[in-house]
Amino acid sequence: MPRSRYLLRWKLSRIKGANSAEQAEHWIPATVPGAVQLDWAAAHQLPDYQEGPHLNAWQEMENSAWQYRAIPGEVPPLQPDERLFLVLQGVDYACEVSLNGERLLQHTGMQTPIELDVTERWHPGVQLDVLIHPAPKAPGAPHGRSQARESCKPAVSYGWDFHPRLIPLGLWQETFLEVRSPLHFSQPPQISYALSEDCRAAQGQLQVVLNAPARKGMTLEWHLIDPEEKRVLSCEEKIEQGQSRRAIEFSLEAIQPWWPHDQGSPSLYHSEIILKASEGEVCDRHCHRIGFRQVRLVMAPGEWEMPNTFPKSRSRPPITLEINGRRLFAKGSNWVCPDIFPGRLERAHYEEQLQLVRRNHLNILRLWGGAPALKESFYELCDELGIMVWQEFPLACNDYPDTAAYLAELDQESRSLILRIRRHPSLVLWCGGNELFNNWSGMTDQSHALRLLNRNTFDLDPATPFLPTAPIDGMGHGHYVFRDPQTGEEAWAVFQKASCTAYSEFGCPAPAPLEVLKRILPEAELWPPRRGTTWESHHAFGVWMSESWLNLPEIEHYFGPCSTLEELVERGQLLQSAGYQGLYEEARRQKPVASMALNWCFNEPWPTAANNSLVAWPCVPKPALAAVGEACRPTLASARIRKFSWTPGELFDPEIWLLHDGPDALEPMEVSVWLEQDGLRRHLLSWLPGPILPNTNCRGPRAQCVLPEFEGPLFTLFLEVKDRPDWSSAYRLVKTRGISPAAPREGETRALNL
Amino acid sequence: MPRSRYLLRWKLSRIKGANSAEQAEHWIPATVPGAVQLDWAAAHQLPDYQEGPHLNAWQEMENSAWQYRAIPGEVPPLQPDERLFLVLQGVDYACEVSLNGERLLQHTGMQTPIELDVTERWHPGVQLDVLIHPAPKAPGAPHGRSQARESCKPAVSYGWDFHPRLIPLGLWQETFLEVRSPLHFSQPPQISYALSEDCRAAQGQLQVVLNAPARKGMTLEWHLIDPEEKRVLSCEEKIEQGQSRRAIEFSLEAIQPWWPHDQGSPSLYHSEIILKASEGEVCDRHCHRIGFRQVRLVMAPGEWEMPNTFPKSRSRPPITLEINGRRLFAKGSNWVCPDIFPGRLERAHYEEQLQLVRRNHLNILRLWGGAPALKESFYELCDELGIMVWQEFPLACNDYPDTAAYLAELDQESRSLILRIRRHPSLVLWCGGNELFNNWSGMTDQSHALRLLNRNTFDLDPATPFLPTAPIDGMGHGHYVFRDPQTGEEAWAVFQKASCTAYSEFGCPAPAPLEVLKRILPEAELWPPRRGTTWESHHAFGVWMSESWLNLPEIEHYFGPCSTLEELVERGQLLQSAGYQGLYEEARRQKPVASMALNWCFNEPWPTAANNSLVAWPCVPKPALAAVGEACRPTLASARIRKFSWTPGELFDPEIWLLHDGPDALEPMEVSVWLEQDGLRRHLLSWLPGPILPNTNCRGPRAQCVLPEFEGPLFTLFLEVKDRPDWSSAYRLVKTRGISPAAPREGETRALNL
Repeated sequence: MPRSRYLLRWKLSRIKGANSAEQAEHWIPATVPGAVQLDWAAAHQLPDYQEGPHLNAWQEMENSAWQYRAIPGEVPPLQPDERLFLVLQGVDYACEVSLNGERLLQHTGMQTPIELDVTERWHPGVQLDVLIHPAPKAPGAPHGRSQARESCKPAVSYGWDFHPRLIPLGLWQETFLEVRSPLHFSQPPQISYALSEDCRAAQGQLQVVLNAPARKGMTLEWHLIDPEEKRVLSCEEKIEQGQSRRAIEFSLEAIQPWWPHDQGSPSLYHSEIILKASEGEVCDRHCHRIGFRQVRLVMAPGEWEMPNTFPKSRSRPPITLEINGRRLFAKGSNWVCPDIFPGRLERAHYEEQLQLVRRNHLNILRLWGGAPALKESFYELCDELGIMVWQEFPLACNDYPDTAAYLAELDQESRSLILRIRRHPSLVLWCGGNELFNNWSGMTDQSHALRLLNRNTFDLDPATPFLPTAPIDGMGHGHYVFRDPQTGEEAWAVFQKASCTAYSEFGCPAPAPLEVLKRILPEAELWPPRRGTTWESHHAFGVWMSESWLNLPEIEHYFGPCSTLEELVERGQLLQSAGYQGLYEEARRQKPVASMALNWCFNEPWPTAANNSLVAWPCVPKPALAAVGEACRPTLASARIRKFSWTPGELFDPEIWLLHDGPDALEPMEVSVWLEQDGLRRHLLSWLPGPILPNTNCRGPRAQCVLPEFEGPLFTLFLEVKDRPDWSSAYRLVKTRGISPAAPREGETRALNL
Repeated sequence: MPRSRYLLRWKLSRIKGANSAEQAEHWIPATVPGAVQLDWAAAHQLPDYQEGPHLNAWQEMENSAWQYRAIPGEVPPLQPDERLFLVLQGVDYACEVSLNGERLLQHTGMQTPIELDVTERWHPGVQLDVLIHPAPKAPGAPHGRSQARESCKPAVSYGWDFHPRLIPLGLWQETFLEVRSPLHFSQPPQISYALSEDCRAAQGQLQVVLNAPARKGMTLEWHLIDPEEKRVLSCEEKIEQGQSRRAIEFSLEAIQPWWPHDQGSPSLYHSEIILKASEGEVCDRHCHRIGFRQVRLVMAPGEWEMPNTFPKSRSRPPITLEINGRRLFAKGSNWVCPDIFPGRLERAHYEEQLQLVRRNHLNILRLWGGAPALKESFYELCDELGIMVWQEFPLACNDYPDTAAYLAELDQESRSLILRIRRHPSLVLWCGGNELFNNWSGMTDQSHALRLLNRNTFDLDPATPFLPTAPIDGMGHGHYVFRDPQTGEEAWAVFQKASCTAYSEFGCPAPAPLEVLKRILPEAELWPPRRGTTWESHHAFGVWMSESWLNLPEIEHYFGPCSTLEELVERGQLLQSAGYQGLYEEARRQKPVASMALNWCFNEPWPTAANNSLVAWPCVPKPALAAVGEACRPTLASARIRKFSWTPGELFDPEIWLLHDGPDALEPMEVSVWLEQDGLRRHLLSWLPGPILPNTNCRGPRAQCVLPEFEGPLFTLFLEVKDRPDWSSAYRLVKTRGISPAAPREGETRALNL
C-alpha cells in the first residue's frame, strides 16, 4: 500500500526565560509551517513589526525557549509489518523532541529533517512535544551578524543593512506522521545521468533502495514521459528476492534538454516509479520531474593567455556558464528571500516573484548565503520557469571556525541540502557563501568549512560546479551607489574601467514606492526624511555608508533639493533605473570576458524605506525592475555613455552597440540614433549592423555631437531598430545642475572646439 | 611473536613486444628495488645512457612487458593462526601478480603497496610472477609529457627540458613475505595530536587496530621518549577482550616542538608501542619518531586590505607558512629527484643532497609534481634535518581528465601517499601539482582531479594546508633566464618590479661543471658547443627558449665571445650565481608580502650540459649553490642593485638592507659599504641599523656615487658588518661591454651630472 501521511496540528507555549527545564503553561494556537513569533504576535495582537516602531516587541522573543505540543488527532492504523514515523521536515533551529515526557532526540539545524520511528510509542492520548531553544549565538560575539558565526543559522536574521534583527524560530516546514512499510522505497529513487558530447542523448541509471529486502516476485516499473506527454521509456524489472537495492541502466536518444528560458524550453520529463508486489499490488510510487542538462564553468576567450608576463601567476578561474555545451551570459539578481519568516512562504509567494524574474529576462538567481533557506516549491518553480539557481550554503560575512562542533553541524546541514535539491535541473552552481575571502569575513582557501563544502558537493553532486565563495579572483562586487560621494565617480564609469569575469553584485539604491512608504512610516515622519525616525530604522540612513540607502545628497547632486516626497521618490527611482540600465548593459558589452551580471538585490524580506532591491516587500516592483528588464532583453541596441549628467556645449559621444545573447543568428538591421531635448529630435547617425552570430555582440560607431542648449532637466538618447521596436532602447540623461550653459568647464574646451 | 619479514629475490625476463600473453624465456638477474632497464642494461652491457649518444638503446624498453619471477627461497614457518602475506611495496607501474600461473591480481599505480594473503598457496617450489606492463600512455596523445595525462605515472619520464625520455618500470620498492598473526597491529598505530594555542602542550590520541579481536588479558604498552632520551610518557592499558581497536588519549606539557632547522631544533620524540599477550609475551612492536608541530598558511600583513577598489574582488590567498605560531620566510628549492630511476635511490643518496640543502640555509623543498616519488628515508631525513616538505601529487603540465578511470587511479594513489607520509612533521604543505591552472596545462578549480585531492587531503590530513596547484593567485613562476633575450630585461629587474606573495619557481641557467661536461660529451664535441651534438641532447639548446639552457648569446652579451670551454663554464656559472643571489635577496627584501623563494631547481636526474639546477648529477654542486647559501643566511647585509652591468660615469645607487629571518632580536650593528674596482676600495657609506626585531628586515640608505673609470671586466660591492663577517656580503658586477667610458649613453646624462 503506498505511503500515507497524517499532518500534525500544534499548539505553542512560551517558556519564561531561556531555561528549557521550565514548564510550558499557557498555550496559544500555532500555525505550522510558520514561526513562534508569528503565533505569539497573533495570539497577543502585537502590532505589525513592519510598521513604525513596533519591532522591539518582536525582537526579544529570540531569547525565549518555546514548546510546541501536538494536538491529539487520529491514530494511524498500521498493518503488522508497518512502522509509524514522526517526520519534522524542518525545525528552526535547535530543538528537543519528547514523547510522553521522555526526550527522544536533540537536534540542531534547519535543513536536516527529523525522522523518528514512533511505532511502539504512538497511542491515543500520546503527548508529543518539540522544545525550541532560543536563537543560537556564538559565545562572546557582539550583537549582530557575528553571533551567527558558529552555526548554520542564516546570518541575515541577526541584522543587516536591509534587514532588521529578527530571528525566526519554530517549525518552518511540514510536520506529519508517515506510515512506512518494508515494501516502500526508503529514500526517493535517484536518477543520475550524463549527456553525450552533443547533449542530445543521455545515459544513466535509476537507483532505488527499499526499506527491507524484497520479497519474492516484486517488480519495479518505470515510466518516463516527455514534455509532449509521449512515453519515451517504459520498463518493468524484477527485483531479486532478498535484495533491497535495484538499479536500472537506461539510455535515451533525441532528448529535449532543459534550457534556461532565454535559450530554449525548460523541458521537464515526468518520471513515475512504481514498486509492485508479486500479485501486482502497488507497494509504493514515486513521481517527480527530471530535466536533462549538462553544466560547466568554462574559461572566457583570451583568459588562458593571461597573465603573460613573468613572474607568471595562474589564469583567472572560469566563471562562464556553459549549459548543454552552449556558453551563455548569466543575467540575474541576488535573491535575499521575500520574507523574514521563511516558514510562512508558500509556492504562490515564490511564484509571483519568479514570474517577475522571468518576465524581465533574468535567467539566474544567486541564493545569497546570508538568507534563509527555501522550500521545495521554489526549486520546482525554477525548474518550470527555466531560471538557473546559484545555491549558496549558509555562510556570509563571518569567519566560520575550524572547530569540530561547527564543522559537524555544517557537514550535516550541507549534506541535507545537497541531497534534497541536487535533482533539480535549475541548480547550476554550488557556492560556499558570501564574500568569505574578504577582510570583513576573514576566511581563506584553507578554511576547513570551505574544504568540507568542496568535499560534500564533490561527493554528492560532482557534476555541478562549486565555488568556495563569491567573489573569487576575477569576479567583482559593488559598487553600491549611483555615485560615490567620496570620489565623485559614477557607477557607470566604474564598470567601464573594470574588466571582471563576472559582476555578481552591484547595487543602486532607491526609495521604496510611495505606497510602501506610506504604510510603514508614521504620517508625521513621512516628510521630510530625517535621521532618528522610522526612516532610519527602515534603512534609509547610516546602515552602510553614512547616507545609505536613501542617499539624499546624491539625489540632490543631480536634481537639487526635493520639495515633496513624491518628487524624492521619483528622482531616486530614476537614478536607480538609469544606474542599473547602464550597469547591466556595460557588463553585457564586456562579453565574452564578462559572463555574468547580477544586481544586488532582487527582493527584500521586509519593507525598507530605501534599498538596492528591484522589488519592494512583499512584491511591489520598483521602476528599476522594468529598466533591468529592458537592459536584459536577449537582443537590444545599447549605448555606452560616459556619464549621466551633461552640460550643453560638451562633446556628447555615446558608443553604439548591438547586444545579442540569443541562441540564433540575426539578419542585418538598421539602427538609427536620435537625441531628444525639450521635445526636439535630432538624428545623430544610422548604422547597419549584421549579420550577427548567435550569442555575439556587435560594437558599432561612436555618435558625436556638441550637445545643444536645452531647458532640461532631462534629455533622452534613442536607439531605434527599424521594424524591431522590441530591440530599441532609450536612455534618460540629466542636464548638469548649476552650470551656466555658456561657460564650459575647464578641461572641456577640446570638446567644445570640435 | 613480533612480525618477521623474508626479503624476496628475483630474476627478470623481457617479453618480446608488449603482448603480455607471450612467454618469458631468457632470464637475467634482477636487482630489487630497481628498474627493469637497469637490469637489462647490466645483463647486456649497454653503454651508460648518460654518455654520448647511447640513450636510444634504453628508450625502446618502455614498450616491452617484463616478467619478474621470484627465486625460490626459504618457506617461512607459520604458527597455526598465522598468515603469510606477499608484500610488494611499490610496483612501477601496471602489473599482474600470478602464483603458479594463476593470476591473483591486476594492479596499477606505484604508490599503492600490494598485499596478498598467500598462506594457502605458498609452498616449496612455488612460482611467483609479476608481469610488468609497458609504460602507460594516454591513447592518442603525441609523444611527450601528455602521454602521462591519464595516469599517475610521473610526467617527467616522458621527456622534459632537463630530462630525457626514459620511463622507469619495475619493482621500485622493497618486496618481501611477512608473517602476520591475529595478535599483530593490522596497520601502523596512528598518533594524532593538536597543539595548544601557545604550541607548548599537545593533546592527542594513540589509535591501534589489531588483525583480530583481542584475546583475554592483552595489553598495550606505550613509551614516548623525548629528544634528550627522557621518558615523558609511559603507560600500559588493557585491551578489552573481543575488541580489535584501542585508543589512548594523552596530553603532554612543555613539549619541544619540531622546528625547521633555521628556527630551532627539529626535535623528534621516539615512540615505542608494544602489544602484549596476557603472559606478557610481546606480540607486536611498533617504533617510530614523532615531531610535534602546527602548520598554517596565514595572510601577509596588508593583504586583507586589498583589493580596495570597486568592483571588489577577493583578497589574495594566504601563502605565508606559520610553524608553531611563528611566521617564517620559506627559502628553498624545487626538488626534481636526483635520479631518473627512483628505485635505485637509497638513504645515502638523499642524505648527501639534503645535507647540502641544510648547509646552504634552505628550509623547504617543493617536491615538484612532475618528478618520481621518493622512498620513506627521504622523509625521515627531512624530519631529522629540519627541512620542510611541500609535497605535490603526480600531476604536472597536463590536463588530467574528469574520467572515472583516471579519478579512480588518482584516488587510490593519493590516499596511499597521504596515509604513508602524513605522520612526518616535515610535511607542511600538500599541493595538487605543477602549473595546472596555466594554459600549457588547462585545468581549473573545477577539475575533478583537484577537487578529489582537496577532499582526500581534507579527509586524511586536515591539519596540513592544501594548494590545488602552484602558482595560485599571488604566486609567481619564472623568469628562467638571467636576461630575457626578447625584452632585454634582467631577472633582477623583473623581481624588483614584482610583488608576489611567493616566488615558487625562478631559474638562472648555467653550464654543468667541467668534470661533468667532460664525462658526458664526446671529446670531439666538447668545444665549441654546437647544436646537433651531444650538447643538444643534454639540453644545452632549444629545449625551452631557443637558446636554453646554455644561453650562449646572453653570456656573450656580458662578456663577449668565449675562447675556451673553461671560460664559458666560468662565465655562465658566474651569471647563474649572480642571478640567484639577486633573486633570493630581492624576494627576501619583499617580506612580509613575499614569504617564499624557491629556485628552479635544486638537483637533476641526469647530467645535463646546462640547466637551472644548483647541483649537477649525481651530487656535484655548482658555484651557484654557495651563492644561494650566502643569500639565504638567516641574517645578512644585502644590496638592491638595479642591474648587473654598469658603465663608468653612471650613477651607481645600490640600496642597502639588513635582512633578518632569524627568531631572535638583533643588537645594533655597523654596516660599511665599499666599492672595489681594479683592486682599489672606496668607502661609500656607513650605516648603523638596529636594534632589529625577530624575523624583520631593515631597509637602509641608498648609496650613491658616479661610477669611476675602471679596467674591469668585473667590480665588486662589499657590505661589511663590523665584527660579523658571517653577515657581510659581496656582489660581483660587470662593466658594460663595448661602451666607451667617455661617452655616456643617452638618457644617462642626469646621472652623470650628479
